[in-house]
Amino acid sequence: MSKTVLIIYAQPEPSSLTRQLVDVSVERLTAQGHEVLQSDLYAMRWKATFDEHDFPERANLQRLSFGAESAHAFRHRRQTADVAAEQDKVLAADAVIFQFPLWWYGMPAIMKGWIDRVWAAGLAHGYKGAGNAYRYGEGAFKGKRAMLSVAVGGPAEDYAPRGINGPLEQLLFPITHGSLYFPGFDVLPTFAVYGTGALTAAGAAAAKEAWRTRLQGLFEDEPIPFRPQNGGDYTRTNELKPHVAAGQTGLTAHIAGGQATQTQPLEAEVLS
Amino acid sequence: MSKTVLIIYAQPEPSSLTRQLVDVSVERLTAQGHEVLQSDLYAMRWKATFDEHDFPERANLQRLSFGAESAHAFRHRRQTADVAAEQDKVLAADAVIFQFPLWWYGMPAIMKGWIDRVWAAGLAHGYKGAGNAYRYGEGAFKGKRAMLSVAVGGPAEDYAPRGINGPLEQLLFPITHGSLYFPGFDVLPTFAVYGTGALTAAGAAAAKEAWRTRLQGLFEDEPIPFRPQNGGDYTRTNELKPHVAAGQTGLTAHIAGGQATQTQPLEAEVLS
Repeated sequence: MSKTVLIIYAQPEPSSLTRQLVDVSVERLTAQGHEVLQSDLYAMRWKATFDEHDFPERANLQRLSFGAESAHAFRHRRQTADVAAEQDKVLAADAVIFQFPLWWYGMPAIMKGWIDRVWAAGLAHGYKGAGNAYRYGEGAFKGKRAMLSVAVGGPAEDYAPRGINGPLEQLLFPITHGSLYFPGFDVLPTFAVYGTGALTAAGAAAAKEAWRTRLQGLFEDEPIPFRPQNGGDYTRTNELKPHVAAGQTGLTAHIAGGQATQTQPLEAEVLS
Repeated sequence: MSKTVLIIYAQPEPSSLTRQLVDVSVERLTAQGHEVLQSDLYAMRWKATFDEHDFPERANLQRLSFGAESAHAFRHRRQTADVAAEQDKVLAADAVIFQFPLWWYGMPAIMKGWIDRVWAAGLAHGYKGAGNAYRYGEGAFKGKRAMLSVAVGGPAEDYAPRGINGPLEQLLFPITHGSLYFPGFDVLPTFAVYGTGALTAAGAAAAKEAWRTRLQGLFEDEPIPFRPQNGGDYTRTNELKPHVAAGQTGLTAHIAGGQATQTQPLEAEVLS
């Protein structure tokens, strides 16, 4: 069945691996009969900084509260046109794919600023004006899928379970769990290509082939089994109940099965 | 002894808690006889997006490689003036403090863009042109201290060891370990104020008092005991040796003692 997929990417160099992978996304998803929407953040000259200009009609001109002004602007349709257009694309999409080079273990600022600005109060947090009642598995984007596709300069060993940088999926937890599962997306395991600083033509070809395979499963693969806030695993103060992941603390306790989902071994093997 | 402290902050509203805490920083550190440098990113209209305009004299006009151009620009002193000025401030400082509201479990984009742009190749990574030889405890900023001071909207329970968001210090690991310890800083435990969405006057006063206390220990407190890359704990492929944090995986294995340093209980207690 035909779906709509939004691809958001942050890499201005057309010959980069990230952009080659974006090209693969567009080509494959279109070939599968899906409608593809794109947000090429550099080409759009996306405004990264969330500031007073995001609120053309302020609720309070004396004091700038981002939360209050975001809620006011979203509720009364007084957001800037660029933000509203991105929200419409997300709402129209069945899946959203973020493609970017990993910079300092996170998104490039231009993409972080997309999250900061587009994830409005009343939409991506404070859903239904109900504070934190609907989040982590519930929210405006419930039923949609999300996936990160990341080009990593360093070698896969640095991101191994005991590698010095920490495992990639744990470093990206603030994004996958905190920014995507939070407003309701089902989040697929991250697709990563390592060693892009010294990638050969064969390495790039293998990366593109691995990405084609992953795209094939965009609507079928199992998402990361993050625990839903309102699914019975958490207390009323949103801490894990004693019998859930008993004795565990930290990020991985919020994944059913108790293990951080590792990046598919395929990529690390083929591409490191 | 008099020191130099750089305060970098990302919050345009003067009455916000973040800015009140910045005021405390300036007042206390000055009173202690230190020289205080400031980078008020919103007032400076800091350019968040790392792009081709960061490289006024390109090494390669055909293909934009951020790593290669950053190294070229840094080595040949062809960086933009704003980036060079920030690097000079960091190099002049004995300690750097980042003060910001937590947005989507990370820095506001304007501050992430400060890292993306100021942390040049040859300076903050690829130090001495030696690839990854000098990092995590070594690097251009060795001997300096760094600390995050974060205003968190949500309640402390959400960030408890088993709280639904994950522990704050693990969510910030890409910054503390990946962006600050990486280029050589000794990183102090994060100072956090929770529940800033509904902070009372008494809560704000308690937060400022707790922050004054933390500032008192800026040059004496023990840093987070991250493991140095070249200190004997890692193999040549930068994975933990089998006897180090035996059986552990993930972010916390890179902290000596095997525990993620939790945010000081004082703050959580006083301010939640």
